[in-house]
Amino acid sequence: MQTPGRTKVKELLASKELGSDFVVKGWVRTKRGNKSVVFIALNDGSTISNIQVVANPEEYSEEVLKLVTTGSCIRVSGTLVESPASGQPVEIHAKEIEVYGTADADTYPLQKKGHSLEFLREIAHLRPRTNTFGAVLRIRHAMAYGIHKYFNDKGFFYLHAPIITGSDAEGAGAMFQVTTLDLNNLPKTEEGSIDFAQDFFGKATNLTVSGQLEGELGALALSEVYTFGPTFRAENSNTPRHLAEFWMIEPEMAFFDIKDNMDLAEDFLKYLVRYALDNCMEDLEFLTKMYDAELIDRLKFVAESSFERLPYTTAIEILIASGQKFEYPVSWGLDLQSEHERYLVEKHFKRPVILTDYPRDIKAFYMKQNEDGKTVRAMDVLFPRIGEIIGGSQREENYDKLLGRIREMGIHEKDVWWYLETRKFGTAPHSGFGLGFERLVLFVTGMANIRDVIPFPRTPKNAEF
Amino acid sequence: MQTPGRTKVKELLASKELGSDFVVKGWVRTKRGNKSVVFIALNDGSTISNIQVVANPEEYSEEVLKLVTTGSCIRVSGTLVESPASGQPVEIHAKEIEVYGTADADTYPLQKKGHSLEFLREIAHLRPRTNTFGAVLRIRHAMAYGIHKYFNDKGFFYLHAPIITGSDAEGAGAMFQVTTLDLNNLPKTEEGSIDFAQDFFGKATNLTVSGQLEGELGALALSEVYTFGPTFRAENSNTPRHLAEFWMIEPEMAFFDIKDNMDLAEDFLKYLVRYALDNCMEDLEFLTKMYDAELIDRLKFVAESSFERLPYTTAIEILIASGQKFEYPVSWGLDLQSEHERYLVEKHFKRPVILTDYPRDIKAFYMKQNEDGKTVRAMDVLFPRIGEIIGGSQREENYDKLLGRIREMGIHEKDVWWYLETRKFGTAPHSGFGLGFERLVLFVTGMANIRDVIPFPRTPKNAEF
Repeated sequence: MQTPGRTKVKELLASKELGSDFVVKGWVRTKRGNKSVVFIALNDGSTISNIQVVANPEEYSEEVLKLVTTGSCIRVSGTLVESPASGQPVEIHAKEIEVYGTADADTYPLQKKGHSLEFLREIAHLRPRTNTFGAVLRIRHAMAYGIHKYFNDKGFFYLHAPIITGSDAEGAGAMFQVTTLDLNNLPKTEEGSIDFAQDFFGKATNLTVSGQLEGELGALALSEVYTFGPTFRAENSNTPRHLAEFWMIEPEMAFFDIKDNMDLAEDFLKYLVRYALDNCMEDLEFLTKMYDAELIDRLKFVAESSFERLPYTTAIEILIASGQKFEYPVSWGLDLQSEHERYLVEKHFKRPVILTDYPRDIKAFYMKQNEDGKTVRAMDVLFPRIGEIIGGSQREENYDKLLGRIREMGIHEKDVWWYLETRKFGTAPHSGFGLGFERLVLFVTGMANIRDVIPFPRTPKNAEF
Repeated sequence: MQTPGRTKVKELLASKELGSDFVVKGWVRTKRGNKSVVFIALNDGSTISNIQVVANPEEYSEEVLKLVTTGSCIRVSGTLVESPASGQPVEIHAKEIEVYGTADADTYPLQKKGHSLEFLREIAHLRPRTNTFGAVLRIRHAMAYGIHKYFNDKGFFYLHAPIITGSDAEGAGAMFQVTTLDLNNLPKTEEGSIDFAQDFFGKATNLTVSGQLEGELGALALSEVYTFGPTFRAENSNTPRHLAEFWMIEPEMAFFDIKDNMDLAEDFLKYLVRYALDNCMEDLEFLTKMYDAELIDRLKFVAESSFERLPYTTAIEILIASGQKFEYPVSWGLDLQSEHERYLVEKHFKRPVILTDYPRDIKAFYMKQNEDGKTVRAMDVLFPRIGEIIGGSQREENYDKLLGRIREMGIHEKDVWWYLETRKFGTAPHSGFGLGFERLVLFVTGMANIRDVIPFPRTPKNAEF
């Protein structure tokens, strides 16, 4: 099946069929010209480049041409010819122009002049029509597709973890409550507490913070699975790095130890960066020119570097020995801040870094305990500009050790009985990690604010559109 | 990067390297034998077939072999040899067996005997280890991947619609509320109502019922987009066809009219059914044998049929003329029930059916109004066994007509100002549809209950795991 009734701009610009007639449809970026010729730059979102439409004003009524303004939507039929202008191989000599939708020049918010990213966030319903967000959203698509392709080609199965969850075992952060109870008239038990037995699911429920535990159930049956779904944090973090709603990819692999896990994470990230370089070069060139001069070089460097691997303990020694002044002083046992991670990556090693064997007290209950009694088989992948882009671990597969840790940390066994049972029946060594999708898109696009790499960001006090 | 440290069962069964040594890891399905030989059927989830491991009991301590029981997880190294047994090309002659995890025969719930699907729902954490759910989850993966591949190959962009939403404009059904307010101590305004200004997003929010409106924003910038994400209905429907949390695919295309939309929907569904036939035949054969003898024939038939297309009005005439007794009597203006849809598909036309031009009063506000003043350019695709599998429409692109309908239906303009603006600035003819992912998986697997085609179903009073 072909695109009905038109040829996409991307295909036209690559077409060799000079002299043939085509129909092209899209939104007008600019119109300029004089009494004898009009030039219309037309874009349909298929590519960052516009096709130039050349029209003879004498062939059209003045009323029609007046409606062709920035932001209007038109249909053009005409002949594809070689373009005399530089920077474009071809152009369309118009025979017919039809206006589908006008855009009043006085009220349409996206006029020719540049707009701040802050302003564009307020009109998130229109910003996909800009060069910047067209580029970001096309790259975002390519990264999502690359992720599915990578795992499918390797024989992983995509597992949909539940979004609404009845347990808060993961402890990864504050959660959003989900309820159908009438908040103006909450049912109470005899003891006076809220009667969640009357709620939709018969108990209190929340939005998931991670699909990992369910991913492990899948891996201990299908060997290699991954999740790719929305996750949520109800934290009041108004920073350029945090969203209340974001997408996460969590592969989980039976029979992988921590070394296999690191190999996969490194291979996966390099594959995605190469995928962007191979499939999104025009958009990357635009973003490099407009936002981040080092972007393409940085992507190429990461695609070709081998990641430095070292234990957390060694990293702490390096940070202490650095003489660098950090806002948060460094000592063994503390969680690393973004400033520490970036020092290691950008100043010390000058390449991506994988830290392993973190203190167990700052990591989650499910991580495999090392023999030293102090550390766990965790791994964080640290990237330039981003800091932590992946967090993962080998999982504790021993039932008694896992149960011990669950009790130490005060997790209710009744919330995780099903998770514990996978260690009781046919347990296996296994590992996995989580990649924040928007962190990846942030890295690949070179954008500075995470609100600018997701179509409709959800942040404190903001759930518009 | 290779699968570290082992070869998957799927690859082993296809291997021609007879006489070579391999390591295979997985879960024991059955063990049988006598004093001189032991046969272990081993599965790792990569395929529905097991690899047979043949071991000489004299080479192993009795303790080790005793631990090799149904459900235990083991590592085997051995030699790949041609199998004398029928139905399997090769087997492994074991040299070493290591037990990773035991499964006590008295307490492991998945012993050899068959289990009811109802029982397996109660142990959804273990059911992916069964043949049935292995098959269903592999097919589910293939369908998700096929969807992404189909759209990527066509130049569509994957757009992530928001999950938490501040507006209930779509009106597709009852919604779940999302809040971080302390339910035991709800803040009140001076007027005594709940003060949602203090809630996380500064207003009342819900879980999305559809990403369509945001999809339209994307299509009116990037031409062709699709969403694929979770959607929610807080309806107390305890049926084999309804979930409170399910996944939906919603393509949205600028410049498509209702005919283009039908062509795409038909091409898309046939592609997916063919994708399953081409990529999941072993699993389909199992499901055909165990659950639905007509499954493969039905899939082949749908992949090759042209779908019957007719207006709703004609369908009503056919139903009335049929003389068939329906539970819900038929008359023009009523929404069709599943029994009516299935009569048309299974009895009358004996093929998939696309109905168009439904009465506007039973359809959503955004559908394009026909000139007759009574109907809208809606389309529903009806499938055997399933009834409605896709619902879609050409959208109303005319600002005044859309606004008129919004006012008629009592939708708050302040909730949809952004949606209206797309008709104010550069509007274009456009269309789209929604496919319920679990309905698709239900059709392709031949399963009867929608709870059995999603890893962790959410239904009234049930949010386990």
